[in-house]
Order: sequence, then structure tokens, then C-alpha cells
Amino acid sequence: MKVNGIPYKTIWMEGKAVMMIDQNLLPFTFSIKKCDHYQSTCMAIKEMTVRGAGAIGAAGGYAMAQALSAGEDPVRAKDTILATRPTARDLFYAVERVFQQGKVSITAALLEADYIARENESAGKAIGEWGNRLIKQGDRILTHCNAGWLAFVDYGSALAPIYSAHHDAKDIFVYVDETRPRNQGARLTAWELSNQKVNHIIIPDNAGALLMAKGLIDLVITGADRIASNGDAANKIGTLEKAIVAGYFNVPFYIAAPTSTIDLNTATGKDIVIEERSPDEILWQSGPDEAGITHNVRVANPGSPAYNAAFDVTPASLIKGIITEYGIVEPGNLKEFLEIHQNITRS
Amino acid sequence: MKVNGIPYKTIWMEGKAVMMIDQNLLPFTFSIKKCDHYQSTCMAIKEMTVRGAGAIGAAGGYAMAQALSAGEDPVRAKDTILATRPTARDLFYAVERVFQQGKVSITAALLEADYIARENESAGKAIGEWGNRLIKQGDRILTHCNAGWLAFVDYGSALAPIYSAHHDAKDIFVYVDETRPRNQGARLTAWELSNQKVNHIIIPDNAGALLMAKGLIDLVITGADRIASNGDAANKIGTLEKAIVAGYFNVPFYIAAPTSTIDLNTATGKDIVIEERSPDEILWQSGPDEAGITHNVRVANPGSPAYNAAFDVTPASLIKGIITEYGIVEPGNLKEFLEIHQNITRS
Repeated sequence: MKVNGIPYKTIWMEGKAVMMIDQNLLPFTFSIKKCDHYQSTCMAIKEMTVRGAGAIGAAGGYAMAQALSAGEDPVRAKDTILATRPTARDLFYAVERVFQQGKVSITAALLEADYIARENESAGKAIGEWGNRLIKQGDRILTHCNAGWLAFVDYGSALAPIYSAHHDAKDIFVYVDETRPRNQGARLTAWELSNQKVNHIIIPDNAGALLMAKGLIDLVITGADRIASNGDAANKIGTLEKAIVAGYFNVPFYIAAPTSTIDLNTATGKDIVIEERSPDEILWQSGPDEAGITHNVRVANPGSPAYNAAFDVTPASLIKGIITEYGIVEPGNLKEFLEIHQNITRS
Repeated sequence: MKVNGIPYKTIWMEGKAVMMIDQNLLPFTFSIKKCDHYQSTCMAIKEMTVRGAGAIGAAGGYAMAQALSAGEDPVRAKDTILATRPTARDLFYAVERVFQQGKVSITAALLEADYIARENESAGKAIGEWGNRLIKQGDRILTHCNAGWLAFVDYGSALAPIYSAHHDAKDIFVYVDETRPRNQGARLTAWELSNQKVNHIIIPDNAGALLMAKGLIDLVITGADRIASNGDAANKIGTLEKAIVAGYFNVPFYIAAPTSTIDLNTATGKDIVIEERSPDEILWQSGPDEAGITHNVRVANPGSPAYNAAFDVTPASLIKGIITEYGIVEPGNLKEFLEIHQNITRS
């Protein structure tokens, strides 16, 4: 996607450095962070300088390649990278692939990491085209968190169909959940949509049911961080609430994710580890004041604790379909769907 | 309730001044605001220096008495007071009662305003005792927004049963929705519970479904700003989401409110006017930094609009019961219930 007319990817490699858009500074500052060592790439994943299922995968793959080319111990490096974020399937998938190629050569590992990033990019593009078929002229779409191009290498998952529909001049409107506690909706999705000139409005996470009760939402699309074999999908905390509420109001709820997010080795959502993060993400908020000076301010009662689970799991029964790069699949048919399409790809 | 060992009400009159705890400064500063004129009391309601269904009612009643004793035009004053917040039933109810007594004498109006505040207080106490019957030893209760003593003259509605259960040494635990955009949960409910030493934790509004999926919530209790004749209840935005999610997980969902919140002249939730507030409440957040200096910081993409409806309406079908000062009533039986109890009160 372009930023101020210049094309960017979310993450890429330049020589031995991993380069990424610093997502902790957005939407206020657009800046590129350079990670010279795999440990600094790990820190960037942990601190969410780079975040979002696909972008974490690409970052993990690059970090693994970076470690190998720096002559680090492959097993130790792999463990360090995998420990950064426990929920995202794309991370395990990408790191493993690069790790295996590392047994062939460093060049093979570097090529594999870049190939994963390119796959992620084309998956996003294809998800956009498939998902666009669900979007009618004039549709009002609700999305949660950021599953846009910043969450991938490019295009995104949940926002890809929106970009594709917007490109086709369908007159769409996007309701953007602010997505507490880290406000990825208000900060990143709103920034992306502004940048692409897609009509949108930010809403508190509390407002979805009111809008659906008023008949103002035609479709809900979110991303996923891991999809279990039975179609249960882990995604940003609050996704489950949206899926339940959408079900109550008969609004179709879709997950958009590349097949790399599907983990057939995870039987059901119960087997997905949910990351818990610092309570400070809830108790404090940061941003620039009117003069542009950034402050970290307390927004809760001093002395009260907070619970900060980063994800929840939406059961397959609440998901109308999963929009992948190969097409839209019902969550109950994942295994068969993957077999068919991976056989086609291999043949 | 006591603050630092000193008993306080949320709002009271001293001579011709209306005195109130400044809820915009809590939980960081405990300070009493003095409103010398009815217009400043109106401004305090509008700016949410005083907020919460019952406290707004008491404030409205006092403002009306204040206007009458200052020789203001009664009809104009009444209109000004009613225009401060459009959703709360208690406001209309209290202002009308004081207005009518004003036709008798200024003294009658002042006494009526104070009588309304005392009624509100005793209703809270009785709600606490009735609601306590629903709470078992060890229960984990979710609440949304602040329907504590700060939202009333004392005791509260949704928190009153919690205080009563805590007083009975039931080992309860409260999950406090932070309640975006104004964070009344994280700021006021958490402050109240800390103050009363009730075990609690702040959660993002997004986390309710995850906790219910894990079986960690036994009961949901919220307040209400207006209850229609058919049992539909308007309350803080996000209440509807909680009620739907609670329904999905078979967790009992209760509304706690004095009967003054029930408006038999409002047929259904569709007839309740929903207040829309400034988008800035979503786009900016304020609080003190580490050094205690308050800043207003931007937490969303500059240039993106935001939608800030203050309330939503939960349909009667999702409400297991309404906890009133007369007992717990099914939302479908409001009219009969009120007739019986108002006849008893009158006889």
C-alpha cells in the first residue's frame, strides 16, 4: 500500500537488517524501525512494533533467517523467537519453515523467509478478491482490531475485501471498533482506512450491539490469529463478543485469514494458548496532547488490578465462513478444503 | 458511604447551594463542587460532574428547587434542567415533582427535592437487600459502568447488592467493565469497590465473553437509566452486548433500579431517546501522568470521526429480573408490580 504516495510493505529485509513500520508510533508518526539482530526483531514482535497475525509470521521468519545468517545457535534462536507471542499460528509456521531450510543453507533460509512474506502478500490479495464477492453496493461493515495491511505484509485479511470493494467503487462504510486495550482499531485500522480514503467511523467496542439493533451493520469481518482444525478461531479479545452479538441479530460474521493461520494440529479452540499481557495496557493510555507531546496517562483507579487477555476464541458455530486465499470455506470443512487446495498447489 | 472515614452523600443541599462530589475528578482527586445557581447545577449535570440515573434525578430536583427559591421563571428553569440529559427517567420524574410542589410554596419545593434524595437513598438500601438474596457465597459478578453509590444519593443500584453481600461476609469477586468511552467502570466503580474493600479486577469491555466462556461469571448486574413499560431497559452503551453475551452463556442478567426509573408512559425501548455525546470522549483520554500532572491525549487516528451514543436498550427478553426497592420483578410484570406496591405505599 502507498503512504504519502510511496509504496510500502509492513515488513521487509535489507541486507542483514529487518525493516518494519513502527506500529507503536502510528497513527501519529510514520517511521521505519531497523532491527540489526534477531534479538531486536524478537523484541519488536514482543513489544508489538510489528503485530498482526501475518506480519508476526513474516517477522518470525525473517528473525529466524537473520539468526541463521549471523551464525546463532538455530535451536536456541528458534525457541527465543517462538516465545515472543504464544497465540499466533503464523509465527510457528513461518519460523519452522525457515528453520528447516536453514538445514540446507543460509541462502535457502533467507529465500524461504522472503518467500513466506511474498506468499502472505499474495494471500492477502486473493482474500480481498474472494471477500469482495460478499460485499454488496452500500454495505456497512463492522471490523474489530486491525487485520489490515499493517497486520500482514500487504493487503491484509479482514480489510482486504474492503479495499477490493472500495477499488470497485462499491459505496461501502466501515464501523471501526476502537479495540481496547491497545486501540488497534482506532489507531491502525482508522489510519489505514483514512489513508485509502475509505469512509469509516470509530466506535467504542460497546457500540456494536446498538448499531446492529438499529439495522446499521450488514456484515462483520475480522481476522484470526489461529484457526483450529474444527474451525474455532482465536482472534483479538472482543471478537467472540462481536460474533455472539452478530449471531443474535442475524448479521453474517466472517473470519478472513490465509490458510497459514489454520492449524490442523490444534483440534479445537480449547487447545489454543491465550496470551496474557501487562495490566498496564489497560490502566494507562498514551498519545500526544494538543501540542503533539506524548504522555502516558492513568485512566483507571490507582490500586485496582486489571486483567489483560489478548485474545478470545470464537466457536465455529458462530462463523458463517472463513475467507481464505483459495476461497470461502465453512468452518466445519477446513480439513477437506485444505487437502483439496494443497493438492492442487502441489500438483 | 464513607470516604477516608467521613460519611458522604453523592449530592446534597447546603443553604441555597447544591453540593456534589466532583465525579469528573475521581478517582484521582476527591473534591466537592458547590453550585450556587441552578444554571451551574445544570452545567454540572451536562458535564457529568454528577452522573448516574439516581444522582441525576436528585440533582435535577435540587436544581428545580434552587431555581424556584431564586425566583427564576419556573417553566423556563424546568425546560433548561430537562434539556441537560435526554435519557434518564429519574431526571424527568424528580424535576416534575419539585415543579408541582413549587406551585404550593418554595418551602414545599425544597422539602420535596430533599425528600426525593432521601427516597433515592432508601431505595438503594432496599435494592441492596433484595439483590443480596441472588448472590451466593463465592459468586463472581460482572458489572458495567457505574451504578454504585456515586450514581445515586447513596448505596447505588447494581452495586448495592454487592455491598450488602460484602457486608454479610460473602466471599464475592467483581469483574468491572472499564466502560468506554468515559471509563466510569475503571474510574468510579473500581474506586468505590477499592474504598469499600471489595475484591475486584478491571477488564476491558471486550473481555466479558471470554470470562463467561471460561465459566468465571456467575451473575451480571447493571443499572438502568430508563425502563419502559414492557421491561426494555436503557442503560450505558455496552449493556446490551453484555446481556446478549450473558444470554448466550446462560449467565443470569439482572437490572437493578429503583421504581422511579420505570416509566409506564414509555411503551417500549423503541420510544426511549438515546443521547449522543461528543466524539472527543472517544478520540481523547485524560488522566494524570506518573508525576500527577493531568493531560488530555489523543488515542485515535487524527481525522477519523467517531460515533458516541451514550446508551443502548436491552430488550426485556434478555433480562432475568429487575431488582427494585420493593423486590425483584420479571420485566414482563412491571405494570402489575408497580400497581400493587404503589397501592401499599399509599394505603
